[in-house]
Amino acid sequence: MSRSIMLAADGVSVQLLDQRALPWQVLPVQLNTVEQIATAITQMWVRGAPLIGLAAAYGVCFAMRDNPSDAHLQHTYTQLLHTRPTAVNLRQCLDSMLAHLLPLPPQQRLAAAYAHAHALCNEDEALCRAIGQHGLPLIAAVAQAKNRVVHVLTHCNAGRLATTDYGTALAPIYLAHEQGIAVHVWVDETRPRVQGALTAYELAERGIAHTIIADNAGGLLMQRGEVDLCLVGADRVTQNGDVCNKVGTYLKALAAFDNNVPFYVAFPHTTFDGTMHSGAHIPIENRSADEVLTATGRTLQGDIATVSLFNGSTALNPAFDVTPARLITGYLTERGVLAAEALHNLFIS
Amino acid sequence: MSRSIMLAADGVSVQLLDQRALPWQVLPVQLNTVEQIATAITQMWVRGAPLIGLAAAYGVCFAMRDNPSDAHLQHTYTQLLHTRPTAVNLRQCLDSMLAHLLPLPPQQRLAAAYAHAHALCNEDEALCRAIGQHGLPLIAAVAQAKNRVVHVLTHCNAGRLATTDYGTALAPIYLAHEQGIAVHVWVDETRPRVQGALTAYELAERGIAHTIIADNAGGLLMQRGEVDLCLVGADRVTQNGDVCNKVGTYLKALAAFDNNVPFYVAFPHTTFDGTMHSGAHIPIENRSADEVLTATGRTLQGDIATVSLFNGSTALNPAFDVTPARLITGYLTERGVLAAEALHNLFIS
Repeated sequence: MSRSIMLAADGVSVQLLDQRALPWQVLPVQLNTVEQIATAITQMWVRGAPLIGLAAAYGVCFAMRDNPSDAHLQHTYTQLLHTRPTAVNLRQCLDSMLAHLLPLPPQQRLAAAYAHAHALCNEDEALCRAIGQHGLPLIAAVAQAKNRVVHVLTHCNAGRLATTDYGTALAPIYLAHEQGIAVHVWVDETRPRVQGALTAYELAERGIAHTIIADNAGGLLMQRGEVDLCLVGADRVTQNGDVCNKVGTYLKALAAFDNNVPFYVAFPHTTFDGTMHSGAHIPIENRSADEVLTATGRTLQGDIATVSLFNGSTALNPAFDVTPARLITGYLTERGVLAAEALHNLFIS
Repeated sequence: MSRSIMLAADGVSVQLLDQRALPWQVLPVQLNTVEQIATAITQMWVRGAPLIGLAAAYGVCFAMRDNPSDAHLQHTYTQLLHTRPTAVNLRQCLDSMLAHLLPLPPQQRLAAAYAHAHALCNEDEALCRAIGQHGLPLIAAVAQAKNRVVHVLTHCNAGRLATTDYGTALAPIYLAHEQGIAVHVWVDETRPRVQGALTAYELAERGIAHTIIADNAGGLLMQRGEVDLCLVGADRVTQNGDVCNKVGTYLKALAAFDNNVPFYVAFPHTTFDGTMHSGAHIPIENRSADEVLTATGRTLQGDIATVSLFNGSTALNPAFDVTPARLITGYLTERGVLAAEALHNLFIS
C-alpha cells in the first residue's frame, strides 16, 4: 500500500487512484494539469475531505508551471475552490498554498509549490497518525472493560483512501488491530455512492473483520447493544462543534445518543472551519440525481455495470448533513480527544 | 388498477403480482398450492404486512382443497406461519382462518375457506379506506395552515401493493390528492430491497408528485424544514405502542422527533399484537446478506441485472427495527388517530 496521493515517478505529475474503480480495480492515474485535478475532484476520482485538499494543492503546482503570475495563482485558487463546496479542507489547503506562494517572486513559485504540496501531504500523514494514537485508547478501553471484540460502526470512508495514509476515523482501528486488539467494524453501505465499499476494501487489505450493513440498520444494532462506539470522519467542523459529514451521519448520531453509544468524530485541524460559528451555514452539495437513481457494481459476467433502480422517477441527492454538537461525545483530533469548547481554543490562532 | 390480491378468473387460484418484477414489469401470477403461496411470501413476490396475511389465507383455501382434515389444517397453519417471522398480520389472518374453519365439518371447509379469505380481503380494503379517511385531516391541516404543497416523507412501501388496495401510510395521500390537495412525497429508497421503487411506482400511477431520496437524506430534509409530516406503515405494533417496521424507520422517527416533525404510523387492527407488551420481544427477520451486497435494476440495454456492490465482504441484513412509542406522534388506524394508551383499549377484545 502506498500513499493515496504522491508525486509520480516523473517528478512532475501527481499519482493517485481513480477511486471510482474500487473495489474492483486498483487504477493508478497520473495527473499533471489543473483541469485534470478539477475533474478528479468534481467526479470523485478522489474524495474525502483531506485528500481533496491535497489534490488541489498539486493542482496549484501545475498552474505555477504553466504561469507563475499572481493573476494565474489567484485564478487557479478560485477555479479549484469551486470544484466541491462542502469540505473545508479544500479551502484550507488552497489558502495555505496561496499564503506560501504569493510573497515569493514568481520564478521561485514552481519549486516552492511542489515543496509545499509535499509538505502538506507529510503533515496530513502525521496528523492522521496522531489521530490514530489519540483514538487508540477509546478502543482499548472497551476491549479491556468488556474483554471481547470491540464493535465499531463507521459511515462512509474516512480511511487511508480519504487522506494521504492511515485515515481519520479508521486510524485508531488500524492501530488497535496492529496492537492485537480484536476489532470488528460495522460498515455502512453509504448510499448513494457506496463509499462503504472503499472502507471494506481498506479493512480487508489489513485483515480487519468487518460486516456491511444497509444504512438503515445501524439504529437497530445500537438498540441491541451491538455497537460499542461510532467513529466517523468530517468534511467541516464549525466553531461550536457542529459536524458536517457524509449524509446520514446525523441519523447515526441520533441513534447513538438515544442508545448511549459514544459517538466520536475524527478529523485534523484542516477540517476545522474557524470562520464559521455553526453548521447552519455550511453549503451542502447537491450531487446528481443519477447517483440515487442508479447503482454501479459488477455483473455475474465480471463487467462493471450501472443499473437503474427506479423507473421514471426523479431524485434529490444532498451529499452531506450536519450533526449538532450536542450529539457528539468527543472530537478526535491530532491534539487528543477534545470537547466542543476546546476546539475553539486549539484551532483558532 | 386492480386489487393486489384477488381470486383468479378460474374461481380457484389466487391472482397477485410478482412484485419482484416491479417497477419494470407488471407480472400477474396465478397461484393455487400452499407451496406456491409459501414461496411467494418467503421470496417476497408479495410483501407488506397485510398482503402477506391475505396471501396466507388463500394458502389455507388450497390446503382445504387438498385435504380438509383438522390435521392438515393445523399443519398448513404452522407451515404458513413460519414463512416470515416479523409481521403479525400473518398470524392474525391464519388465526382467523383457523378459528373460522376448525368448528366446521371438514366437507364444508373448502367453500368456507374461500368465503372467509375473500371476506378478509374485503375487510382489509375497508380498513385501508378508513385509515385514509382518518389520515386525510392530518394532510389537509398542513395544507390549510401553510397554504402550499404538503411534503410527506415515507419509508418502504405501505401502499396498495402492501395491502388489498389503497394501502395504509399512502391511503391518506391518495385521498388528499383526490381532493385536490397538493401533496409531494419524499420516497426513501429503502435499501436493501428498494421498496421505494414500489412506492414511486404507485404514486406515479396516480400522478402524485414524489422525489426519491437515499435513506441517509431524510434527517437533513427534516433539519431544513422540508418535511411536514412522516407517514409510515407497520409490521407489528405492541400493546405499549412500540412499532416494528422496515429497518430504518427508527432512524427517521428519531430525526422527526429531533426536529418536531409529526411522525404517524398507519396500520389496521390486524397489525396490532395484543399478546405482546413491548417491541423488545418481536422477532426481527434476518434476510440474506446478498440483498445488502447487491443491487438489482435495469441496464442501459433494458435487461434486468443484479450487480455486486462489494468485493468479498460479508453483510448482515436485519429487515426490521423497532421504533419506541415515545417517538410516535399518533397511530393512524381504521378507528381514527389514536394515542398509544388508546391502542390497548380499542384492539384488545
